[in-house]
Amino acid sequence: MKQTKIGLFGFGNVGQGLYNILHETRGIKGEVEKIGIKNPEKKRSLLQKWFTTKPVDLIQNENVDIVVELINDENEAFSIVKESLENNKNVVTANKKMLAYRLKELIELQKKHQTSLLYEASVCGSIPIIRNLEEYYDNDLLHSISGIFSGSVNYILSKMFNEKSTFEIALQRAQELGFSEENPEDDINGTDSLHKLVILALHGFGLLVNPNDVFHFGISTLHKKDIKFAVEKSKKIKLVSRMFRTLDNKVIMYVMPSLVNQSNALYSVENEYNAVIIGASFSNQQILLGKGSGGNPTASAVLSDINALTYSYKYEYKKMNQNSDLSYSSDITLTIYLRFNSKSDLQHIKFEQIYEKYYSAGFNYIIGKIHLDELISSKDYLLENNLFIAEIN
Amino acid sequence: MKQTKIGLFGFGNVGQGLYNILHETRGIKGEVEKIGIKNPEKKRSLLQKWFTTKPVDLIQNENVDIVVELINDENEAFSIVKESLENNKNVVTANKKMLAYRLKELIELQKKHQTSLLYEASVCGSIPIIRNLEEYYDNDLLHSISGIFSGSVNYILSKMFNEKSTFEIALQRAQELGFSEENPEDDINGTDSLHKLVILALHGFGLLVNPNDVFHFGISTLHKKDIKFAVEKSKKIKLVSRMFRTLDNKVIMYVMPSLVNQSNALYSVENEYNAVIIGASFSNQQILLGKGSGGNPTASAVLSDINALTYSYKYEYKKMNQNSDLSYSSDITLTIYLRFNSKSDLQHIKFEQIYEKYYSAGFNYIIGKIHLDELISSKDYLLENNLFIAEIN
Repeated sequence: MKQTKIGLFGFGNVGQGLYNILHETRGIKGEVEKIGIKNPEKKRSLLQKWFTTKPVDLIQNENVDIVVELINDENEAFSIVKESLENNKNVVTANKKMLAYRLKELIELQKKHQTSLLYEASVCGSIPIIRNLEEYYDNDLLHSISGIFSGSVNYILSKMFNEKSTFEIALQRAQELGFSEENPEDDINGTDSLHKLVILALHGFGLLVNPNDVFHFGISTLHKKDIKFAVEKSKKIKLVSRMFRTLDNKVIMYVMPSLVNQSNALYSVENEYNAVIIGASFSNQQILLGKGSGGNPTASAVLSDINALTYSYKYEYKKMNQNSDLSYSSDITLTIYLRFNSKSDLQHIKFEQIYEKYYSAGFNYIIGKIHLDELISSKDYLLENNLFIAEIN
Repeated sequence: MKQTKIGLFGFGNVGQGLYNILHETRGIKGEVEKIGIKNPEKKRSLLQKWFTTKPVDLIQNENVDIVVELINDENEAFSIVKESLENNKNVVTANKKMLAYRLKELIELQKKHQTSLLYEASVCGSIPIIRNLEEYYDNDLLHSISGIFSGSVNYILSKMFNEKSTFEIALQRAQELGFSEENPEDDINGTDSLHKLVILALHGFGLLVNPNDVFHFGISTLHKKDIKFAVEKSKKIKLVSRMFRTLDNKVIMYVMPSLVNQSNALYSVENEYNAVIIGASFSNQQILLGKGSGGNPTASAVLSDINALTYSYKYEYKKMNQNSDLSYSSDITLTIYLRFNSKSDLQHIKFEQIYEKYYSAGFNYIIGKIHLDELISSKDYLLENNLFIAEIN
């Protein structure tokens, strides 16, 4: 059986994981041909001859069947993917940021050059969510996709809730374990989860949405007071990405902390695990759980894409045309917990209705209904003043 | 766009659910052409003209593109599927019993007539487990597949644990809700779960296993004493199907009650929900959860197969050849809870090692290590004497 030759860009956590899987497992039809890196000085676990600093050595290499792009910089990643597709190479990438901003161009490039770009590893690590949305929820009436999309943030929250760990120690541990992005800011402020949500909007609802238009709020302002509040109410705080269809064909999307109680499927999703909950008309609630972070789980998703390319699999993006009457919207009112500092904060953030208000010496909160657009416009104020919000549902 | 014409056999719970989905949902390219039934006298929700009692009216009907078989009798079901494949029709079936016993012939029929037989709805209702095993865990190193495969039994156990319901009332309610097989015995004694396990053995490990060779023990001898025992130990009893690979390339399979504690992912799977836990080398533990019983969830899986047939999808059964060194085995020692009546029972069931033994006026149990072959040979004794067993792990 012919071996598929892989041109691999990047030799970090996931790249090394992939190399190990490919070369330690029998029955896999792929092997690495050459590895493209940026820094030739860095100490590597393989001999020099495996590496090159020139992208063309892979992209224009006739021996290379598939290009696998696993670098961090999203602009360089885009160049590599674009040139590879233009050189008639099929490509696998895990770069969610690059994808979230460039999906439109990438779809056109695939069409123009009759090539295939797969990126299962970009969303929720080992969970096969993109392929399932492409293949399986095709003509079931999909209502909603939500879940925990950041293994790194979920690990931090688990440590803080279950082991009373501080944020700093939890973050450090997450980085040591290889769960964090190179820039942990993207995890912490919800951007990373947002990028994944944007990718799923395409495969779930056929929508191309600009990430900049979508509200996202992370856990950078989370305080132990918020954790105490949650624990007292027998709830946990999880960073939840959410997307659902309304009756008038709008698709609402946002990423923000959520106060979940024990009856919620996300309550017991802990550590680096991710979860995706799919709501559909006839199958009702489907839940997929798996490791969302770490070299091996992510590499296993890359491997599955490599394998799919060996039988010419490509995403069909069917829903892009099917559901042309759907559009992205932020026109929704949500129930929100807000921890604030002083009464003057409430003049900047307008609630439509207030259910609970609590003042004390060191802890003030309000629970009420607020429009998502109001959250979008007060986001900077919230962050600058270290206020914390979480959805209640 | 051309409508796919469906010849539908059976108009029970799932058949009617499918008809409703097909005819009430826009964007689906399929419609029912005719419905094959057995009893023309039975009152139906549709006009007479839709029905026929002659299978040939569907199987040899040139307008019919796809035959969907949803009847109960496994022998009649096999005839329908066989003749349809021989008449070059692609077929969708949900009949797990028929499949578990006839997979070998059905694979040969597909090959011979270049037709496709899909059966996602036969295992765990709406959970896309067969397709995921076929497509996704292809060259990841699969270690184990386990889970809750009977929505009906899980519903009964949930009612008994959470609402202190009696077995009889819980069963009656499961039947009213359409969660049970026509013959509830198959659910209760674990046969239904066994059939599903046998189907997954093929798609997960490439093994054709005779269901009669595999140990299965249901909940027919479950007593409220067992429930009390579980609750006292903060555990629940779940009917678990399990299959795992040993280091010497054996695949162990069995279905039996399991005492699960809160840290087990199956602990919180309640009511008609099913769960499949996939253990693999690099992705670690993946969990799929969804409704396992009921007309609509099952019909949604049938629908997804119909849709897959419109783009010529067929199972490749790749693992059948890949893993030719794997074989089914019952050579394993398990840790078992046994509730028994009197000391003489213990002469019939030989434990290799005993961890706990408890005697009282009305309740005796033993916990210890026992070989699976010993369970196989003492199964009749256990059932005849109303003894109950559950795995502990």
